[in-house]
This record gives sequence, structure tokens and C-alpha cells, in this order.
Amino acid sequence: MKRVKLVVAYDGTNYCGWQVQPNGITIEGVLNRELSKLLKEDIVVIGASRTDSGVHSYGNVAVFDTNARMPAEKISYALNQRLPDDIVVQNSSEIPLDWHPRHCNSRKTYEYRILNREFPMPQRRLDTWFVYRKLNIPAMCEAAEQFEGTHDFKSFCSVNTAVEDTTRTIYSCELKQDGELLTIRITGSGFLYNMVRIIAGTLFDVGIGKIAPEDIPVILEKKDRKAAGPTAPAHGLTMIGIEYEIPPESLMEVQVERT
Amino acid sequence: MKRVKLVVAYDGTNYCGWQVQPNGITIEGVLNRELSKLLKEDIVVIGASRTDSGVHSYGNVAVFDTNARMPAEKISYALNQRLPDDIVVQNSSEIPLDWHPRHCNSRKTYEYRILNREFPMPQRRLDTWFVYRKLNIPAMCEAAEQFEGTHDFKSFCSVNTAVEDTTRTIYSCELKQDGELLTIRITGSGFLYNMVRIIAGTLFDVGIGKIAPEDIPVILEKKDRKAAGPTAPAHGLTMIGIEYEIPPESLMEVQVERT
Repeated sequence: MKRVKLVVAYDGTNYCGWQVQPNGITIEGVLNRELSKLLKEDIVVIGASRTDSGVHSYGNVAVFDTNARMPAEKISYALNQRLPDDIVVQNSSEIPLDWHPRHCNSRKTYEYRILNREFPMPQRRLDTWFVYRKLNIPAMCEAAEQFEGTHDFKSFCSVNTAVEDTTRTIYSCELKQDGELLTIRITGSGFLYNMVRIIAGTLFDVGIGKIAPEDIPVILEKKDRKAAGPTAPAHGLTMIGIEYEIPPESLMEVQVERT
Repeated sequence: MKRVKLVVAYDGTNYCGWQVQPNGITIEGVLNRELSKLLKEDIVVIGASRTDSGVHSYGNVAVFDTNARMPAEKISYALNQRLPDDIVVQNSSEIPLDWHPRHCNSRKTYEYRILNREFPMPQRRLDTWFVYRKLNIPAMCEAAEQFEGTHDFKSFCSVNTAVEDTTRTIYSCELKQDGELLTIRITGSGFLYNMVRIIAGTLFDVGIGKIAPEDIPVILEKKDRKAAGPTAPAHGLTMIGIEYEIPPESLMEVQVERT
């Protein structure tokens, strides 16, 4: 038996999110199905970020256990032959049997993209939120920085979740402008349900002058979802990648050296 | 009666190219259908670049005549309400009745994009040619420059076309690298059938060492399609825009001033 880690990129447009659900095709469901066929045993993957319907990924992480003899590094190549065009495994590697992608210290990075121009651009309709209103970019940049640090993000969490501890650490949150494309890049220890999309929606409210940059600390203090801005649409969000404090592959090397 | 010019962006993935044809939906066909419904008369557009199936556009140009009273500048807004998400008119303007988008001196710009990495990236599967082989980028850059100038491009023209004069002027042809993304940007007075895709395929052959940069003038000299490289896949190609020597809108201003 071995545990294998996958780095998975996908265009989330045609999926009902990551997590298996009764109605609709999910990324997790497709991975389970194709891995089971490839390795000829029942495979169940565990994902690091259970992205919502329409959300994309460059580097989500999933792990699974297998008795198959295929070397872990070869699984990416074999699996990609079977996966649809909109899901591509970027890497596969062997990791310790007790390693869990959600129970280890990590830095997760997401990008939320806004396309700010008069008319939509067809090529970016699936991975950006189209906004035609004029936005105050300097104010949005100033507001973005206010999210950095360790805060109680209860105001930036969907009300439908029952998480006890809503405190998270944001290592960096910045808005970059590349012409008409605005990218909110945010790296943190972890994120609450819909947190990045609510931050993006709140920055939009700053952009249209409804919220001032200096209101952000006040909104955080209120610990009330209603104090923050709207939840920005899912399709503007991309999970960029996850960096683990201790890369699980390095633990394997230690194990190998010991034997 | 007035003549209206449209600047049209589209994701060509789901279309059988620009030009109306008996089997399959085309950009031209959708524009004719939706303009006819909007303006309540039979509209037939004339396109500047009749892009192939799978080719994209940021700024193709089309014109049509109408008796409708709707101001030309408003047509883009009204038409976009009816068009599918993957076709968006970026601008509409009134132009002289005798102005034809293919009979005027212009500079057309195309980009051909290659994604050069180990595994495909789902988000770029529709607008880049995925190449996993290691490419010699400096050699490709050197070869790209060889296309600049006025040449007989017979070697870079699909054999199935009956064009008499195969001489064209390329104002600039350069390859830019942005990490894993290689963009061949080419501006010229006009292009033969499949010319940009054959240039891209030939630059690929340079990248893999099959053709040397100094072979390009020799291939041009041969005036034989077989001397050049393969035709690169359609979906890597995007028509960026068309700049007319005399912008037709400026001719309208002169007309208006005269009256």
C-alpha cells in the first residue's frame, strides 16, 4: 500500500465543484472514477480545497491510497490519458501513509480576477468576473492590504457554515492591475467558506465607492456577514496552489534514507 | 440607408469559422441572424478576416448596410444583448456607404500562442497549442524576424488556394516568451490562406531543431509549400485587430463637416 499525492489543475466551468454529490459531475468524482479504472481497485481521493461549482484550479492537492504497483510518478501520465481535457494532473508523487492534505500547516494561494472594461471579452468569460463600472483601483489596493494579518473573519464567511474558529491568518492580499485585468492575489493559512469571494465582493464595493478602505477593519470587528460586501461570482476564482510547511515528499526522502 | 462597422471579438471554439456554410454554425451566420432580428430587415455582414474553424478574435471587422433608425453606436449594446456569450461586439460606428473592409490598406495583427510545458493547462486548452517538447526559443526568435519585409509567401500558403499574387508585406514578426507561454505576434498588409499557421508550424520546426533560422530565406525562395513546416493547429491562432491606413470613421467626420 502507498499514498499518492496529486496536483490537479482544472477548468471548473463544467463541474458541480470538487466534492462528490448525488446530482452532477464533480472533479473528485471524475478522479475517483478514472483512478479506479486505471488502477483496477476502488480509489477514493481526499482533496485539500473543496472548491465550489465554477471555481478553477491550477494546483489543488488530492491524495489517495493504492496497492497498485505503478510508480507514483507515472500515475500522472497514465491518468491524464483518461481524464477529460478540462482536468489535468500536473504532478504525482509518493508521500507518507499518514499524511493528510488538510491536517498540515500550509499556505494556500487563490486569485480572484475582475475584467474591468466596457464590453465583455469572450476569451475571459469563464475565468474572470466582468465588471463594466469604473473602479477606484488605488482605493481597492489600499483596502486589500487591510486583510493581511491574523483576524477573525466571521464577517467574511458564508452564514451557512458551522465552523467554530473563524480566525485565519492572511500572509498577503494584494490587488494587481494589468490593463483591464484586476487580480486579487491572496495567500493564507486557510480560508472560510466563500471567504475569498466575499473579500472580492467587498473590494468591488470599495471600487464603486460604497465602502471606504478604512472601513475594512470596522467590518472585521463587527463579526457579521451583513457588514461585508456581496459574494463575488464563483467563476472569477482560481485556486493557484498549496505550499506545505513541510513538503510531504521531503518526509518520504527521510523515510527512504532511514531504511 | 447607412453602413455600419462592427469590431467583433469571439471565442471560435464552438464555431465552424467565420464564413457562412451549409453545415454548422458560423460567426457570420450568427451575426446575420441576430442583426436581422434586431433591425427587422435582412442583414448580410461582410467580414474583413474570414477566420477558420477554431480560430479566435479580439477585433475582427465586419460591415453591413441598414435602413434602421437606431444610431450606429447603439447597435453594439443592443446586439450584445442577443448574441451568445462567446461573441461580443466591441464597437459599432457609422462609416461611408462605399467603404469595404477588405478593399482598403490595413495592418492586420495576429497572435499564435504555444504553451510549452510538461502537462497541458486546462485553462489554456482552447487558445494555445500545447507543446511538451523542449523548444530552442532564441532560434525561434531569430527565425521569426526573417519573415519581416516584402516576400513571396507561396511556400507559406495552403496549396488549395487559387490566389494569383502571393507577395505580402510583413511589418513585424516576433516571438515573445512569458514563462511557459510563447506568443508569435505578426503584423502584415495581408495574409494568405493558413499563412500564420504555417509560419507558426515552421517556427515550431525551428524550435525542435529540424529547420535552422537561416533556412527561412531559402524556404521563401523555393516558393513551394512542401519546403515549409506543418500547419499549426487552428485553436492557437487569434486575430488581434485591424488598423486601417485611413480609419473609415475619420472619413465620416469629413463627410459630416462637408454637409
